[in-house]
Amino acid sequence: MKKHNFSAGPSILPEIAYQNAAKAILDFNGTGLSILSISHRTKDFEDVLASAQSLMRELLNIPENYHIYFVGGGASTQFFHIPANFLATKAGYVNTGVWTKKAIKEAKYYGQVEILATSEDRNFCYIPKGFEIPADLDYLYICTNNTIYGTQYKEDIDSPVPLIADMSSDILSRPIDVSKYALIYGGAQKNLAPAGVSFVIVRDDMLTKVVRELPTMMNVNTHAENNSMFNTPPVFPIFVMNETLKWIKSIGGVEAMYKINVEKAQILYDEIERNTLFRATVDKADRSLMNICFVMAEGKEDLAADFLKFATERGMVGIKGHRLVGGFRASCYNALPKESVEALVACMQEFEQLHK
Amino acid sequence: MKKHNFSAGPSILPEIAYQNAAKAILDFNGTGLSILSISHRTKDFEDVLASAQSLMRELLNIPENYHIYFVGGGASTQFFHIPANFLATKAGYVNTGVWTKKAIKEAKYYGQVEILATSEDRNFCYIPKGFEIPADLDYLYICTNNTIYGTQYKEDIDSPVPLIADMSSDILSRPIDVSKYALIYGGAQKNLAPAGVSFVIVRDDMLTKVVRELPTMMNVNTHAENNSMFNTPPVFPIFVMNETLKWIKSIGGVEAMYKINVEKAQILYDEIERNTLFRATVDKADRSLMNICFVMAEGKEDLAADFLKFATERGMVGIKGHRLVGGFRASCYNALPKESVEALVACMQEFEQLHK
Repeated sequence: MKKHNFSAGPSILPEIAYQNAAKAILDFNGTGLSILSISHRTKDFEDVLASAQSLMRELLNIPENYHIYFVGGGASTQFFHIPANFLATKAGYVNTGVWTKKAIKEAKYYGQVEILATSEDRNFCYIPKGFEIPADLDYLYICTNNTIYGTQYKEDIDSPVPLIADMSSDILSRPIDVSKYALIYGGAQKNLAPAGVSFVIVRDDMLTKVVRELPTMMNVNTHAENNSMFNTPPVFPIFVMNETLKWIKSIGGVEAMYKINVEKAQILYDEIERNTLFRATVDKADRSLMNICFVMAEGKEDLAADFLKFATERGMVGIKGHRLVGGFRASCYNALPKESVEALVACMQEFEQLHK
Repeated sequence: MKKHNFSAGPSILPEIAYQNAAKAILDFNGTGLSILSISHRTKDFEDVLASAQSLMRELLNIPENYHIYFVGGGASTQFFHIPANFLATKAGYVNTGVWTKKAIKEAKYYGQVEILATSEDRNFCYIPKGFEIPADLDYLYICTNNTIYGTQYKEDIDSPVPLIADMSSDILSRPIDVSKYALIYGGAQKNLAPAGVSFVIVRDDMLTKVVRELPTMMNVNTHAENNSMFNTPPVFPIFVMNETLKWIKSIGGVEAMYKINVEKAQILYDEIERNTLFRATVDKADRSLMNICFVMAEGKEDLAADFLKFATERGMVGIKGHRLVGGFRASCYNALPKESVEALVACMQEFEQLHK
């Protein structure tokens, strides 16, 4: 049975990335060696790294005055590296749920945190807007897409202080204006690569603004100066990332990707609105294109387990909602084909017929 | 042409690990999903993680009062995590070259470092022995095998203070008495897995001895308590590690592995001794079974570039020595077949004939 992979992360990658990864494990670039067993100092790997950086720069239109680097440790590592590097006195955080809460917890270890806005009052089902940004903050921190609640910023914020964004789950899914950000980072295991590598895009002036002495691996300058090669980088995840970036370019870049993502999300949100058995959990304006959350309609709650079973039997994978929201979550990352969304919609319609 | 992969790291892994990794990328466990695209919270991956931990425990005979966990970030991250967790006042370090120097640098950020012994006087070509270990140290830190200089501890030190060892490059290559160590860790990209995951084996009493408040990801307890799942672990490197561990078990475990490693190293060191063109760089007693360093014999130095070309043309990969030692380095990790060592020896003999 054909599987439709709606996992929130690690998540679906383009088929060509799987094919090329499997090939490179058996023989990388015709070297007679496995991509798993080559030195990161070889020309072959340096080419992969350079290609990944250059494609990321091209696809996101990253200005010349930004460094791009790749490191291990996950976004959870960046949660504390960011305040360690940049929080001297006070930073502003917008709380949109679990991922920003974790970041806030780590920031408090290094300085004062001002919560500029929060959507906690309604279980994070919207993105707070119109909040003041004090000019004396060291930086403003946001998470542009929350995988758990299915919310997403639709605009790049204008900030009078350096804007730092966790884009783990929507990087390269939509055009952004990188020049509005001081630093963008994320775990790559959603739209880019398998688990094990994070990307950091940092404006050069930030590299001179590190506020304290730090262990070598924690300092942003270490990775920027050494071009991701201070220590052995996660070679294979970077290889797969490069394959994914090539694929995004091949389908027309981020603008084209965005159009496809809008179309996929529209199909699913439309069905959620139409179908009498389901309802969306997020305010319309803030619904994520990546993580589409829905629950059973009022009075139909007892059908939830049945629908999960019904959909699972039809090849849907990873659609159980996070326990903090309940219901269902269909993650529709870049590599998820439109057919998968259509298969899920067909499931929902079939299930509705059974429960008329 | 058949390649012989002597790379110092990332390095050769067993053929069966490549085969199973390539298969799992296309279809993991018959799930219809890629190992690169499954949630780390799935039963299928939890089984892989549990298997890797249990095999490591079995193969190294790790007592019950030790936790085993896997994290990203590389050994370079552990260089500062260890003193951050355990260095309150003063720690002792034995300096055997680059890797301990880096660890010492990070430790100084957190407290006082006493260099108990160093082999710097002869470019780290031996392992210092017979040094005093003051009883008031927070811990004693060593690196059991130095990839760059080709030195290796042959015995587990008896230490009156907690013994912490970086075993990045010789873990599972020889039997060790884990009970003599408070903490053993390493990057896995030599004998275990592709780059992107580190292992930590920590005695439970150490978990109660963390000396300062730390960001969540830095605290050993975070990873021990959450069984490597506080954040998304490096799923694919852990999968490959499990395949490697299964392979070690299949060939008879660490004792069997050690015998093969001794045999391979003996063949190569014997040839280095016999061959009039080459000489070993390390004192006999301290020669590594993993990284075998040699240079041209006195008066033959100008043949070095020729030999590198000669050997490369015959399929030898990664035998150029590190710039700090020069000459050649043949890394003979667990997965390197005896035939590769024999092929290198044949090269050396053929080259000797040409330069009689």
